[in-house]
Amino acid sequence: MTIKFQLDKKLKKARAGKIFTSHGVVETPIFMPVATQSSIKALTFDQLDTCGSQIVLSNTYHLYLRPGEELINKAGGLHGWTNYKKPFLTDSGGFQIFSQAAIGKCKITDKGANFSDHITGSKHFIDPEKSMQIQTKLGADIIMAFDHCPSGGASYLEVKEATDRTHAWAERSFVEFEKQNALTNYDQSLFLIAQGGIFEDLRSQSIEFIKSIDVPGYAIGGVSVGESREDIDRIVRDFAHLLPENKPRYLMGVGTKEDIVKAIDSGIDMFDCVLPTRIARHGAFFDERGQRRSIKNAEFENDFSPLSKTCSCYSCQNHSKAYIRHLFKAREITAFTLLSMHNLHYLIDLTHNIRKEIINGDFEAEKYLQE
Amino acid sequence: MTIKFQLDKKLKKARAGKIFTSHGVVETPIFMPVATQSSIKALTFDQLDTCGSQIVLSNTYHLYLRPGEELINKAGGLHGWTNYKKPFLTDSGGFQIFSQAAIGKCKITDKGANFSDHITGSKHFIDPEKSMQIQTKLGADIIMAFDHCPSGGASYLEVKEATDRTHAWAERSFVEFEKQNALTNYDQSLFLIAQGGIFEDLRSQSIEFIKSIDVPGYAIGGVSVGESREDIDRIVRDFAHLLPENKPRYLMGVGTKEDIVKAIDSGIDMFDCVLPTRIARHGAFFDERGQRRSIKNAEFENDFSPLSKTCSCYSCQNHSKAYIRHLFKAREITAFTLLSMHNLHYLIDLTHNIRKEIINGDFEAEKYLQE
Repeated sequence: MTIKFQLDKKLKKARAGKIFTSHGVVETPIFMPVATQSSIKALTFDQLDTCGSQIVLSNTYHLYLRPGEELINKAGGLHGWTNYKKPFLTDSGGFQIFSQAAIGKCKITDKGANFSDHITGSKHFIDPEKSMQIQTKLGADIIMAFDHCPSGGASYLEVKEATDRTHAWAERSFVEFEKQNALTNYDQSLFLIAQGGIFEDLRSQSIEFIKSIDVPGYAIGGVSVGESREDIDRIVRDFAHLLPENKPRYLMGVGTKEDIVKAIDSGIDMFDCVLPTRIARHGAFFDERGQRRSIKNAEFENDFSPLSKTCSCYSCQNHSKAYIRHLFKAREITAFTLLSMHNLHYLIDLTHNIRKEIINGDFEAEKYLQE
Repeated sequence: MTIKFQLDKKLKKARAGKIFTSHGVVETPIFMPVATQSSIKALTFDQLDTCGSQIVLSNTYHLYLRPGEELINKAGGLHGWTNYKKPFLTDSGGFQIFSQAAIGKCKITDKGANFSDHITGSKHFIDPEKSMQIQTKLGADIIMAFDHCPSGGASYLEVKEATDRTHAWAERSFVEFEKQNALTNYDQSLFLIAQGGIFEDLRSQSIEFIKSIDVPGYAIGGVSVGESREDIDRIVRDFAHLLPENKPRYLMGVGTKEDIVKAIDSGIDMFDCVLPTRIARHGAFFDERGQRRSIKNAEFENDFSPLSKTCSCYSCQNHSKAYIRHLFKAREITAFTLLSMHNLHYLIDLTHNIRKEIINGDFEAEKYLQE
């Protein structure tokens, strides 16, 4: 069974929908927390549930290296391995591999990518076929084509080469996925990814190319990789709505409030980002207006109010800024947990609220951006 | 209101009882988890509740230094500060201060103790009066007298001096507590502590001395501080039952399965130890027989069974050794959480089970010690 998408409501370009999976329904727009190594950093899955999470992303690159897809497959795929009952999405591994290119540790040809384990230095090769084989063993509900994501500062020619390669690899991913999918017991769906960097003609070609292959969902990759905010806005605004209307649209790696609000306004349905948990471990949290604040600030030393007065997360319902600040400064691990829960809840709740507004017909991006 | 103790059942020296506090009932024997800096390391209090916890210990030394007892008092004491609803116990700060004596960083006179902050190096002075003032501001249900705990290797003369000082300080603690208690809104009860090291005459004198002051509970201090296991066993076996029968008896700092089982068999009701959470952060967990195992062991790589097949904790109900091992080796914080929950649940459950057996009349220490 592949995933099914239902469009509940459209408000200009913005959409509210549902993704039906064999592990439950995902209401879109949705923010997907990232369980890089198969756990949300500093959280249990029960704690994640209290954040309103409906689907989790996990990273193929990390899981391939440790503990390996064979072990996870033996445990019954990511669901058996983690005992998390809701849908999973895995990325292709490409993004982590290609981010090594910048430091000269990755060699890419049309065949595939040679790279080194960022921890042990051991040598590996992944191509579209291998990525599909790993991901079908990991067993996520949604898996991603192996694409070539160039850096935000890449030249036109570099981006063109990466985009052409992404298209060839999309075809190879699709063929190999069909082959593997026939052999696996997991219900899986392949999403294809458009590249093209900040160049309109390349983006346009890429969107058209991936649309030519009928899969259950499509993504825009290669944003939030070093280009300017204006470029991100422009690419998403001009191209998101060109993806098929009857399929979910996923903007990869995007996770600030502003970017999410604008992207939903441009027709995007799905988001993921490590930002909310990563900044939590550095003491940052989102306040009532979604602004990033530091719990280390002296102003919070005697502040017995919650991180956000309007937040219903576990941390805000139970603890004060003064308490969490003390824990953070005293290097208590629980501070990471409390800040991570709050930040995840904030972004997931943001997408839930916007969904309601789209359905009610009163979503206005400007309202969020002016806060 | 002071705490009240009710003896439900006695089986030879072993006791099952209840401690009534204004924050609920504690069923004894009980293991008390340690929230050193006002959080259980790597856990939220909701997670702690799933471990069966009924009362938590917090450390006066750490809280006095950071964030300071004034801030906690302003938040409504430890209950307001942490939002934990169940009873708290605070130690006196003495143990942490005197453990600096071994490295020459603490100067003790009959007046009190000069010591340095172990992190900032700042200079401080605490005496019985100051400890009571701090603890009445922290607002725990049970607070401990300021005692002088010598190291396990101390000579007879050193222990005698520390024991005599402990008695003088017990009187001063009692007087100051009565004074402070009349001024505070918190319901608090003072426990006195017997010292005497491994020397029978000094232990005997110390038990008799503290019994001469009528307080709601009594503790045996100065065990598990470097002396041999045989010495611990002997002191607890020979002296625990000499403490008043109608008051709770607390053996400070003891937390291995063997020590807890023997101490309950000798008439002890309350235990605390950082061991279960500390060893968790080093990858150790208790198996079905209470033996300490390392999750890092290669034998667990493909082991999809829980940490303990007989355990009902969150970790064992949800995750496999293989999964937790992967998280630990991949340095995921969640591994600390899962191992800490299991270890705390194990020791708390041990005391709960023994309580039931005492009430049923079938508790046999040997059964646990032969496992």
